Amino acid sequence: MENQTAQRISSAQHILIICHISPDGDAIGSLLGLGLALQKSGRRVVMACADPVPEQCRHLAHWESIIQAPRGSFDLIVSLDCSDLKRLGTAYDAQAFADIPIVNIDHHTTNVQFGTLNWVEPTAAATSQMVFGLLRAMNVSLDVDIAMCLLNGILTDTLGFRTSGTTPEVMQVAIKLMDAGASLSELTDRIFNHRPLGTIRMWSRALQEIHLDDRIVWSQITRDMRQSVGLSEDGVSGLVSFLSTADEADIAVVFDELEAGEIKVSMRAVPGADVSQVALALGGGGHAQAAGCTIPGPLEIARSQVLSMLRQSRIKGP
Amino acid sequence: MENQTAQRISSAQHILIICHISPDGDAIGSLLGLGLALQKSGRRVVMACADPVPEQCRHLAHWESIIQAPRGSFDLIVSLDCSDLKRLGTAYDAQAFADIPIVNIDHHTTNVQFGTLNWVEPTAAATSQMVFGLLRAMNVSLDVDIAMCLLNGILTDTLGFRTSGTTPEVMQVAIKLMDAGASLSELTDRIFNHRPLGTIRMWSRALQEIHLDDRIVWSQITRDMRQSVGLSEDGVSGLVSFLSTADEADIAVVFDELEAGEIKVSMRAVPGADVSQVALALGGGGHAQAAGCTIPGPLEIARSQVLSMLRQSRIKGP
Repeated sequence: MENQTAQRISSAQHILIICHISPDGDAIGSLLGLGLALQKSGRRVVMACADPVPEQCRHLAHWESIIQAPRGSFDLIVSLDCSDLKRLGTAYDAQAFADIPIVNIDHHTTNVQFGTLNWVEPTAAATSQMVFGLLRAMNVSLDVDIAMCLLNGILTDTLGFRTSGTTPEVMQVAIKLMDAGASLSELTDRIFNHRPLGTIRMWSRALQEIHLDDRIVWSQITRDMRQSVGLSEDGVSGLVSFLSTADEADIAVVFDELEAGEIKVSMRAVPGADVSQVALALGGGGHAQAAGCTIPGPLEIARSQVLSMLRQSRIKGP
Repeated sequence: MENQTAQRISSAQHILIICHISPDGDAIGSLLGLGLALQKSGRRVVMACADPVPEQCRHLAHWESIIQAPRGSFDLIVSLDCSDLKRLGTAYDAQAFADIPIVNIDHHTTNVQFGTLNWVEPTAAATSQMVFGLLRAMNVSLDVDIAMCLLNGILTDTLGFRTSGTTPEVMQVAIKLMDAGASLSELTDRIFNHRPLGTIRMWSRALQEIHLDDRIVWSQITRDMRQSVGLSEDGVSGLVSFLSTADEADIAVVFDELEAGEIKVSMRAVPGADVSQVALALGGGGHAQAAGCTIPGPLEIARSQVLSMLRQSRIKGP
């Protein structure tokens, strides 16, 4: 599929690339990595994401060139790291773009194969890893900026080489990106070693009330808590990963009460458990070990719904 | 030095290997990795550490064969990951072992070159990485157990490939260890993704009182706090690393009041800052970015001494 995808993209001239809403470091990393590489190889490229580029991705070169509402005519759309057409959000104008073929490049096991051409590899550690292979198949050489973007994506989705999907092949790709000039230490520092003291204080608040039911450990962040530490940014993904280290739990959940009253649910599971199905059923997505969704409030109702679904899913099994 | 060290060790038959007191994953990993490899190559080997093997290293094969008080006659002592003869603790019997040559293998910049032969490489990410090179120079082949031990050491000291010393070479060594059968995901899971809920509760308590003075962020763990969460094990190294992610600080410190009343001081610094000199001056050791020491209590006095030394050291510069 790598070669077929490379051929399909090589034959296009004016390409719109879109990644999923609520973008993470792999979404933005693969978007910028592919976009910059295709521009370098002489194509007209527009990079888009319906949501703003999050703070923690703004160390990547040219992030400002990602737009939220692409317009114009394209001969190809490339969807990156996105399991479902809906998750392209408003960056995909269903009416205006109806006739444009879509190449769907993704590594989510929950991908619904919505593209004209679908290259979905659930064994890939990150979509950025797939883009690395794609660029090699297209004979596009890397530069520092591209290498930084792709390594950023790999580090984000492997949690810095810590997930079970981190194979020697992933490490080899990382080394090649380092050889191309990407700084591993700069990226790990940016991705994992920086949070405002406010986030640490918010964690402290959230950790004061940890609940453990039936090997599910959970905590919550209320609007009041955010206000009291003066924090608008999230900082939640680190918290749920941290909670999931508890020996006494198989599943960790953080409920985050957003400004508008919706509840952002972040879930982690140990190998053997699976949180992706519950996320999917609630309109979200992700992987067996890390998934999430955003559902209507109020907090108490959202919480009991998710916890009961998680218990159910465990009884039924995957 | 690698080849010279290899020759020196190859010519010995009855070898005592010792790592430093309060051993971490690199001390135990390099000790076991070298010990098992030398046993495999037909030598009589005794592996020793003055302190018990910590819980978080007991997933490594044959850890039970490490003894605390070695006796007998040896024709060579190998000191691993240890910057100073004192830090071998009571495992090194100064009187009985006075005439035995010492090979000192270490990557600490604070190493005082106490050996008969000193192979000190501050640019190595871990002593386990040096042992990997040594075994290659000695033509000793790896097996799964040895590979797991050495990868354990590398992961511990690079914080899972996150420190600035994580070069492509370190990654290549990691891949070779994975090729020899070491499981990266199992080790990262063991090292980074497991803590009792009690530790998380203790973090929560410690994080409730974070202090920020002059870009030094610090917190403390009192005996009372440990008792209230029912925790005897430490769990402190993760906490100080976490504190050091605060954007507002260059240095993070955790003061841990031990059962006997002494204060264990764990320090982290961002690149550019250096905590090793203060640790060294107080009888401890470590690296510029991560160092520690254990000093007399009471807590308040120890705290103000360390904080004032850290401020001083910053004024003087490295």
